[in-house]
Amino acid sequence: MPDYDYIRDGNAIYERSFAIIRAEADLSGFSEEEADLAVRMVHACGSVEAARQFVFSPDFVSAARTALKNGAPIFCDAEMVAHGVTRARLPAGNDVICTLRDPRTPELAAGIGNTRSAAALKLWRERMAGSVVAIGNAPTALFYLLELLSDGAPKPAAILGMPVGFVGAAESKDALAENSYGVPFAIVRGRLGGSAMTAAALNALARPGL
Amino acid sequence: MPDYDYIRDGNAIYERSFAIIRAEADLSGFSEEEADLAVRMVHACGSVEAARQFVFSPDFVSAARTALKNGAPIFCDAEMVAHGVTRARLPAGNDVICTLRDPRTPELAAGIGNTRSAAALKLWRERMAGSVVAIGNAPTALFYLLELLSDGAPKPAAILGMPVGFVGAAESKDALAENSYGVPFAIVRGRLGGSAMTAAALNALARPGL
Repeated sequence: MPDYDYIRDGNAIYERSFAIIRAEADLSGFSEEEADLAVRMVHACGSVEAARQFVFSPDFVSAARTALKNGAPIFCDAEMVAHGVTRARLPAGNDVICTLRDPRTPELAAGIGNTRSAAALKLWRERMAGSVVAIGNAPTALFYLLELLSDGAPKPAAILGMPVGFVGAAESKDALAENSYGVPFAIVRGRLGGSAMTAAALNALARPGL
Repeated sequence: MPDYDYIRDGNAIYERSFAIIRAEADLSGFSEEEADLAVRMVHACGSVEAARQFVFSPDFVSAARTALKNGAPIFCDAEMVAHGVTRARLPAGNDVICTLRDPRTPELAAGIGNTRSAAALKLWRERMAGSVVAIGNAPTALFYLLELLSDGAPKPAAILGMPVGFVGAAESKDALAENSYGVPFAIVRGRLGGSAMTAAALNALARPGL
């Protein structure tokens, strides 16, 4: 019978993982708080090289943390992002909302000639002011968010712009960084991103430390 | 007002994405069916280089597809994996099961001196024979699966071994590839992997094509 030698303690695994990431990743461009986020995001994707693509606006971490402490809802473009948020870490029992599967979304998508991921944002409007918006999957959702903001929609407190992929992902994140309509933001430049990295960033914002 | 120029049609985005991946990724080591899986897995992580780390046992795709068609349940180690499976793609309304948050899991974890992710597998036993097992997050879950199989547990029809991370991930996947107890398997070598890639592989297995 093979002998499987591995660490079986969850906290010990986290601690060793984070130590490896801090030893290998170049975090020199980040503040201490940003580095905490970056470590968790690298942990979620398994690539220390990804940290080179992280960009945080100077006020992002404090704006997002303050909003969450004050009970801001978290709006997510994908169920996977929403389900990656550890509820026990949230500082104010914050609502985590994904409207992609709302029964109204398909008709809204047809109405605006865009994806369901984009159309789902129309259902955020009432509570979007001061919220934390996390786009971890669909570039169309991030582009549509920018269109809504351009049209004068209520401003979130912070935007995580981390869609993944080969068509529109890099472009949508560049567009957010170029003009975020005054909203603090975090992005992962290029093709990388995704629901796991986005949820990891939310979990780091929700509570510092392990 | 900025003019955001992007593709708003979901299927067109998929098709263009998959075309880019096929143009850039080295899929020459894969069968046609394996390449379909690989394309979706690359799509989920945004890195064509990741394809170099994919390993499929020769019988993996057919074994997993046959099991799913016959109604096999899908067992997942993480909620994010389970929530990434597109239910409409499943060929037989297959159950998608994650027992991580089962109220019995914490006590089981204490009992075996392992993580909750590992202990959650104890609740799979009754339906594990012929199932599709998808480990997309926790190396401890994959190691523990191997321990169960070594102890004579019922054999799944196929194993997706794709945990991500810096401690135990590479080792657990190497261990699966070295001795899978006769069960067909797919792995992502090294640190890469994760819930999105694992869910993408499941979605590709569930139904070929877009």
